[in-house]
Amino acid sequence: MRLYSMPSSGNSYKVRLLMALTGRAVQVVDCEYGSDALAGAKAGGALPYGKVPVLVLDDGQMLAESNAILWYLGESTGFVPADPVTRAQMLGWMFWEQYNHEPVIAVRQALVSYPHRAAEATPQRLANLLDRGHALLQVMEDRLSGHDWLVGDATSLADLCLYAYTHTAGTRGGYWMDRFPGIAAWLARIEALPEYAGLSA
Amino acid sequence: MRLYSMPSSGNSYKVRLLMALTGRAVQVVDCEYGSDALAGAKAGGALPYGKVPVLVLDDGQMLAESNAILWYLGESTGFVPADPVTRAQMLGWMFWEQYNHEPVIAVRQALVSYPHRAAEATPQRLANLLDRGHALLQVMEDRLSGHDWLVGDATSLADLCLYAYTHTAGTRGGYWMDRFPGIAAWLARIEALPEYAGLSA
Ligand SMILES: N[C@@H](CCC(=O)N[C@@H](CS)C(=O)NCC(=O)O)C(=O)O
Ligand SMILES: N[C@@H](CCC(=O)N[C@@H](CS)C(=O)NCC(=O)O)C(=O)O
Repeated sequence: MRLYSMPSSGNSYKVRLLMALTGRAVQVVDCEYGSDALAGAKAGGALPYGKVPVLVLDDGQMLAESNAILWYLGESTGFVPADPVTRAQMLGWMFWEQYNHEPVIAVRQALVSYPHRAAEATPQRLANLLDRGHALLQVMEDRLSGHDWLVGDATSLADLCLYAYTHTAGTRGGYWMDRFPGIAAWLARIEALPEYAGLSA
Repeated sequence: MRLYSMPSSGNSYKVRLLMALTGRAVQVVDCEYGSDALAGAKAGGALPYGKVPVLVLDDGQMLAESNAILWYLGESTGFVPADPVTRAQMLGWMFWEQYNHEPVIAVRQALVSYPHRAAEATPQRLANLLDRGHALLQVMEDRLSGHDWLVGDATSLADLCLYAYTHTAGTRGGYWMDRFPGIAAWLARIEALPEYAGLSA
């Protein structure tokens, strides 16, 4: 298996995290923003939607979309709950991440940290993303203040998926994480998982 | 089972379509924009993220996110492929729909047709959404010009999911659908499915 992955991107990081936690071996092709490697992967047809991450299987079949790759790699592990309702709730958080959390919380991190996006980082836009992000983090806090994990009673793909852009939301995105003690405890719980050591993005 | 559903919304429509195609009985609670029913459902705690659709199971458990509901209702039907790679590719299209297609193609339809969003419908915004939507429809066309279905060789949840906002993209959204003959043939294929009759949104 080969993973086309962007070192600075949380969507790619999620997949690298699951691989590390499950001890999967894979060849990683680093495709940083603006790199020749990214341009080459696009030109060579390795990226079905023109985006990373993409997982290329040994028979050449390609999987795009970070959360679909998580599903593929996670399906036969303990990170996908056996109960059908819990499993669907897990997918619910993962769709919520792509529809709500990523377009706000990842975008603010990108505007603040990528030089090529600095022109979009107007004070008004940053303030709007801050408020909306705090409201989204509150949705997670509402769950995590009373439960160890986002669904069921064990770590699932939903936790790994949302960990990606949440664990850097304060340091890279400027979100006020001290408002969210339930999230803080949950981040620490993930970081205490066996095999995690040193995997922070 | 009870489905909280917005009659005018494609995200709710997807779920109603799958239910009709699989002959599932469900009590539907219509929650149109700005209605007392929607306000009541929110106030009563029936909508975990404050949005519809939401499926409430007979034991009271709640499922949010249209595509997670599709998964739950579809998992044991022929609409979820048995092959793990095809199944992950199906989810890939469904994440792509939430991350890319819906925020452009559904949003243009909403700006054009909902009176409460008319103020946002500036010519510049509508032109931007038109161009970006055509590029997204081209991604679907690239697949559908050579294949009957989005993944594998049978109708899957990916097709029902993307049918929702695609079949109204021309009439409600002003997209130029005559550019996309592969999509047109695919829409007709879905409309020819047994049980479809008269289900257009
Ligand atoms: N929804 C996709 C998003 C993928 C995406 O937008 N990737 C960005 C990096 S985070 C990318 O490939 N950008 C390169 C480019 O646009 O050229 C996923 O979750 O995989
Ligand atoms: N990603 C969600 C989107 C749900 C959503 O945004 N629903 C809208 C209608 S399309 C809604 O409930 N709006 C009511 C409100 O915001 O008050 C899904 O696919 O279910």
